[in-house]
Amino acid sequence: MLTLDMVYSASYKLKEVIRSTDMIYAPKLSDTAQVYLKPENLQITGSFKVRGAYYKISQLSDEEKAKGVIACSAGNHAQGVALAAAKNGIKSLICLPDAAPISKIEATKAFGADICLVDGVYDDAYAKALQLRDEKGYTFIHPFDDEYVIAGQGTIGLEILNDLPDVDAVVVPVGGGGLISGVAFTMKKLKPEIKIYGVQAEGAPSMVTSLAHNKIERLKSVSTIADGIKVMEPGSHTFELCRKYVDEIVTVNDDEISSAILTMMEQQKLISEGAGAVPVAAVMFGKIPDIAGKKVCCLVSGGNIDVTILNRVIERGLLTSGRTCLLNIELIDKPGQLKGVSDIIAGLGANVISIHHERANEGSDINGCYLRIILETRNHQHITEIRAALVKAGFHLLNT
Amino acid sequence: MLTLDMVYSASYKLKEVIRSTDMIYAPKLSDTAQVYLKPENLQITGSFKVRGAYYKISQLSDEEKAKGVIACSAGNHAQGVALAAAKNGIKSLICLPDAAPISKIEATKAFGADICLVDGVYDDAYAKALQLRDEKGYTFIHPFDDEYVIAGQGTIGLEILNDLPDVDAVVVPVGGGGLISGVAFTMKKLKPEIKIYGVQAEGAPSMVTSLAHNKIERLKSVSTIADGIKVMEPGSHTFELCRKYVDEIVTVNDDEISSAILTMMEQQKLISEGAGAVPVAAVMFGKIPDIAGKKVCCLVSGGNIDVTILNRVIERGLLTSGRTCLLNIELIDKPGQLKGVSDIIAGLGANVISIHHERANEGSDINGCYLRIILETRNHQHITEIRAALVKAGFHLLNT
Repeated sequence: MLTLDMVYSASYKLKEVIRSTDMIYAPKLSDTAQVYLKPENLQITGSFKVRGAYYKISQLSDEEKAKGVIACSAGNHAQGVALAAAKNGIKSLICLPDAAPISKIEATKAFGADICLVDGVYDDAYAKALQLRDEKGYTFIHPFDDEYVIAGQGTIGLEILNDLPDVDAVVVPVGGGGLISGVAFTMKKLKPEIKIYGVQAEGAPSMVTSLAHNKIERLKSVSTIADGIKVMEPGSHTFELCRKYVDEIVTVNDDEISSAILTMMEQQKLISEGAGAVPVAAVMFGKIPDIAGKKVCCLVSGGNIDVTILNRVIERGLLTSGRTCLLNIELIDKPGQLKGVSDIIAGLGANVISIHHERANEGSDINGCYLRIILETRNHQHITEIRAALVKAGFHLLNT
Repeated sequence: MLTLDMVYSASYKLKEVIRSTDMIYAPKLSDTAQVYLKPENLQITGSFKVRGAYYKISQLSDEEKAKGVIACSAGNHAQGVALAAAKNGIKSLICLPDAAPISKIEATKAFGADICLVDGVYDDAYAKALQLRDEKGYTFIHPFDDEYVIAGQGTIGLEILNDLPDVDAVVVPVGGGGLISGVAFTMKKLKPEIKIYGVQAEGAPSMVTSLAHNKIERLKSVSTIADGIKVMEPGSHTFELCRKYVDEIVTVNDDEISSAILTMMEQQKLISEGAGAVPVAAVMFGKIPDIAGKKVCCLVSGGNIDVTILNRVIERGLLTSGRTCLLNIELIDKPGQLKGVSDIIAGLGANVISIHHERANEGSDINGCYLRIILETRNHQHITEIRAALVKAGFHLLNT
């Protein structure tokens, strides 16, 4: 059974490998609450997962250690187990579906794990891991539903109370529920009046659904940019702990998550992965009840986001905040038209990023042509000025 | 005259407003040295500048405080002065060239400053600020050439020695030289055997040139993506302090800076501005002498980079690391060609980002057409496989 003793013991044990991450005051993230960030994205391996994995592995018997450990993950858990095993001087084998991104595979190898690529999806890799466990005697390290793993994640609760003793509420990402179970258990035991809120992705609300129906349920499908919390079913330990210690679990959608990622980049200079950004998203979009005037700590669980996805998040954010703009303009196909458009855009100080010019297509005048321009702009007002100036000069803007 | 007393006094005074930023071990940034980061991008206002500005303002007489302060800057200094003045309960006026980015103006206003937009470039705004100082009796807060400002920046040296007493070398960005003067003075006084290295942008090497010629020289022009250190001329205090306390100043180019920004995002989950990334760039590209096996602290001075520039840095980084690729393919203009190309690309697991298809142009076969495709790829080897498969299938790839 999970005890505070285990969390304190994990905290002592973890001093060998982890960083006690900073507590960062982030006044720009809310007009009403006093928001603080616990940046586990700055943890070694880029996520909190190493805490649970390291404590679990440190508690294995010599015989178990001699045989080594196995896990199934394409993400942060894989890197956490790989590093934890290496630091304990034992072997680790990580099963991954063969479609896993090369970058994740390489990162896991770099921390010292052996890799077993399995044909198919996550469930196939999971089945393979259990089969290898049975055949070879490896210890399986569960990503969340294990009390030692949960105790390891609970050490974050101790650090938050140490750095911000008068914290009123903590907001925590929820996938399988290992992180929030550890944090909620630890903090409620020490400070019963604290509020603990969980956040899931709207497209993967497994814990929300299970708690609502008061029994563990498996979702039929999950879809979210926050892969770290894209989990179909809570664990049995984590379900019980959430039921007992968590005040409420809310959801955020992918647009809200993207917006939170971009805001953290711009305001806090921190890279967060989708799962890591859900607490800030929940605070930004008013999902957490009664936080006006309160000290609220958002647990940024990790920062392992692919830079190509980050690029898309930025592009989307630039569009929605009016700092890039796409114009489709219908021109008459005669000399000087492009110059006319260029003059107006340059005069208003916008910067052309790309242009695509195309002659007549179905539905347009035989003499017509189209200009598709992407601009760097200052804000929505700037875009409105540019559109107005083009219309005034006689150009026909199409809806974009 | 600058004394250690002033630095200690600044350190005490600054506790009211600043964060003592973390020390982050960053083993992935070098194969030979033990690299640590001092992340002043996580400082309030997103840069170290608030330290010097706050200490300077705190030392003004009541009469000076009553009249208020003035500064000239479109960047981090403006925000530092604005916040420092607000925290001291006095007025600040910031002169900016009128072409300054709206985002910077808004950020400075948000910290409580009044704004004076001046027609022209930085030098015009600077002249206006001096004129207003003379007319109105404001105190001018110099961005670097002031011993109180330098003492404020020197507090970073105390924090580094506190958190990493056995540090061997510190690598510091150099613009006007205020930051490195404070850090070098402080650290050499306390630990004379420490090495202090400066880094300037290749396109703005004002301190390098002045030190080489042993007199203060003004550059004719400066050009770099690192605007925070795009300075034409060192100060007289900073020139003397660098001459006396800095071991060497090296330079890095814009490609090296971009690469360092991207590496810090991916490996350390930190957003750095160009100026903030130059120490990491210098370490990554072997510019700092004799660091094998040494503990090297890179001072990440700030993180206030425009997200549109960040976007370009990422795109460039993705191209150079083989994670996006641009193909220009010459096709025969007949049905099925696009399908042929698509099949090959899909079969090899690359992801199409954009396609542009165009008929005959000058110099091509009258039956020819061009396909310009941007792909998301895994790495350079993946690109090589795709190119080879296309060639093998009879498609003609043009040089890109």
